[in-house]
Amino acid sequence: MELLKERILKDGIVKPGNVLKVDSFLNHQMDIPFINELGKEFKRIFADAPINKILTIEASGIGIACIVAQYFNVPVVFAKKAQSLNLDGEMYTTKVESFTHKKVYDVILSKKYLGPEDHVLIIDDFLANGCALMGLIDIVKTSGAVLEGAGIVIEKGFQHGGDKLREQGIRVESLAIIDSMTNDSLTFRE
Amino acid sequence: MELLKERILKDGIVKPGNVLKVDSFLNHQMDIPFINELGKEFKRIFADAPINKILTIEASGIGIACIVAQYFNVPVVFAKKAQSLNLDGEMYTTKVESFTHKKVYDVILSKKYLGPEDHVLIIDDFLANGCALMGLIDIVKTSGAVLEGAGIVIEKGFQHGGDKLREQGIRVESLAIIDSMTNDSLTFRE
Repeated sequence: MELLKERILKDGIVKPGNVLKVDSFLNHQMDIPFINELGKEFKRIFADAPINKILTIEASGIGIACIVAQYFNVPVVFAKKAQSLNLDGEMYTTKVESFTHKKVYDVILSKKYLGPEDHVLIIDDFLANGCALMGLIDIVKTSGAVLEGAGIVIEKGFQHGGDKLREQGIRVESLAIIDSMTNDSLTFRE
Repeated sequence: MELLKERILKDGIVKPGNVLKVDSFLNHQMDIPFINELGKEFKRIFADAPINKILTIEASGIGIACIVAQYFNVPVVFAKKAQSLNLDGEMYTTKVESFTHKKVYDVILSKKYLGPEDHVLIIDDFLANGCALMGLIDIVKTSGAVLEGAGIVIEKGFQHGGDKLREQGIRVESLAIIDSMTNDSLTFRE
């Protein structure tokens, strides 16, 4: 998506440890009209899929998922990291290793909000090694829902999580795939 | 707001420990058209305020803030709980005690995204004892920004956080204020 690539080149900052900071527009400060454009693009890409629910994971996926959901006219469900006193009853659980925070989270989702009747689009801001996405896919499979695909804003292609999932037959659609990045240059996959 | 009160009476579940679960429509599964109605109502209430930024706190505030922001045509900034490797540079920090999770969080916000030029509306899903809101207000004051007010979806009036802040002259507007709740009954403030 050209608009996104241009924005990454303009406002993204590459930091040591393969970190790409896009926190001026995507995941700390959020440019809402811009994220609406991402929503329209996801709808264009997944127009053929009978999606009735969007799944994401806290925290930075939630706002993007909510904006995107408006173009599909479906509810959002977000998986939560760690146990909360407010979540009781039966839950799907899985474990996710965070690239950013270098630790393992328990991720939970109430069984009330995902089941065999659902056709799910997963939305997230980043895909790197794919751990968060694999955790969400694990939850979708356990629930008996149909996974229609994953819509990712920025994929770090050089960390290969997306490629591994595509090889397994999962539809992963990323609006920008970065194949290499340094302080001075950033190369997108064609 | 009648639509919200009706929804709380229909789908809210009171749990021991003064917990009101609204996770079927507000903070786990999210009913996006419904949250759009909340956005319109906040815009109606704060129509006179020169708001140029919406501030919230992760996680469950983010999605609501993003939908609400569309009616104000302003960006969202969300404060983050605990340290993240992706957040460097200068940050505002404060501490927040969570009623739900019974622990104290460090809350951080990049100084790049809030400053004296900003007129801030704080948006959050719940207000109980007011700790999260006081943490956000502390950040706004430190930044030199003007606090235009706080827009809360559900206030637990019987925990008095909102009343304390109103006594300090802060504009706190809640779409529903619950003055008492038990398993069998739930009373809204008029």
